[in-house]
Amino acid sequence: MTDLSKYIREIPDFPKVGIQYKDITPLLQSPEAIKEAVAQFLKLIGNEKIDKVVGIESRGFLFGMLLAEKLNAGFVPIRKPGKLPAETYSEVYELEYGKDTLEIHCDAIKKGERIILHDDVLATGGTARTACNLVKKMGAEIVQCNFLIELEFLNGRNKLRSYPVESLLKY
Amino acid sequence: MTDLSKYIREIPDFPKVGIQYKDITPLLQSPEAIKEAVAQFLKLIGNEKIDKVVGIESRGFLFGMLLAEKLNAGFVPIRKPGKLPAETYSEVYELEYGKDTLEIHCDAIKKGERIILHDDVLATGGTARTACNLVKKMGAEIVQCNFLIELEFLNGRNKLRSYPVESLLKY
Repeated sequence: MTDLSKYIREIPDFPKVGIQYKDITPLLQSPEAIKEAVAQFLKLIGNEKIDKVVGIESRGFLFGMLLAEKLNAGFVPIRKPGKLPAETYSEVYELEYGKDTLEIHCDAIKKGERIILHDDVLATGGTARTACNLVKKMGAEIVQCNFLIELEFLNGRNKLRSYPVESLLKY
Repeated sequence: MTDLSKYIREIPDFPKVGIQYKDITPLLQSPEAIKEAVAQFLKLIGNEKIDKVVGIESRGFLFGMLLAEKLNAGFVPIRKPGKLPAETYSEVYELEYGKDTLEIHCDAIKKGERIILHDDVLATGGTARTACNLVKKMGAEIVQCNFLIELEFLNGRNKLRSYPVESLLKY
């Protein structure tokens, strides 16, 4: 198994002083790393039957769409307010300073569907929990939340205790 | 060849009055439509050797990443200002009202690399042309610009005359 961490670039003080940003773009640039990441995700998902992969805007679209294709599932975007054109469910969540909102199309997921929730990074878990809340409200089952990167020191996993959580790289 | 147009939903007056928005989310929800769209893109690309697929934020990430994986190429995001963490090249372009900027990482593309430029919709072509300018400045070759949807009445193709342009659905 290839160690994907060599494809992650640390950028000091981005987006603000004191944060060591994990840049996934070197991984995206490498065809081998893309294939390896997909293979590792599929191994973590195992033989579960999945109806939809839900990806969070915008970096969650990258591997979210790839996983959907590999799993023979559909892909559903969760987006910032005002981006989705049809009727949406939305949920507000708290940020360090202020609030934000996520939206999902009301007709994107059917009751009982089996879902993978995907994003590139699990940090504090606020965004992922909000996305899970939206999916649960629609009566679907979250089979797994998965992430390319998990920032363990931020304890995001604690906010997702009701769901299986997997990540390829832990910091 | 499956007609993908049945997976595109028209939303009247989005994002503003008088615009018939082409919503691709029904296509994303269908595993069959995803596979069909990928197959049609690959047919349009043919046997060209591609080093990188460049996708424009954020809906260009969806099929951009899938095409990169299928072509055994890397993926490079072009993003709105302030989103890419490392050193970037940027270019400002005119919108109907005001200006916008696109950025690309300076180390994302090497001189001479063969590139596919991808976005979901070709409208007036301003965004795509700006993206192409960035890629050209880096000394790469644009083998094809491709789009899921082309709004022919907006003549976006005229802004991309230097490059081969392909689209799966024309309106």
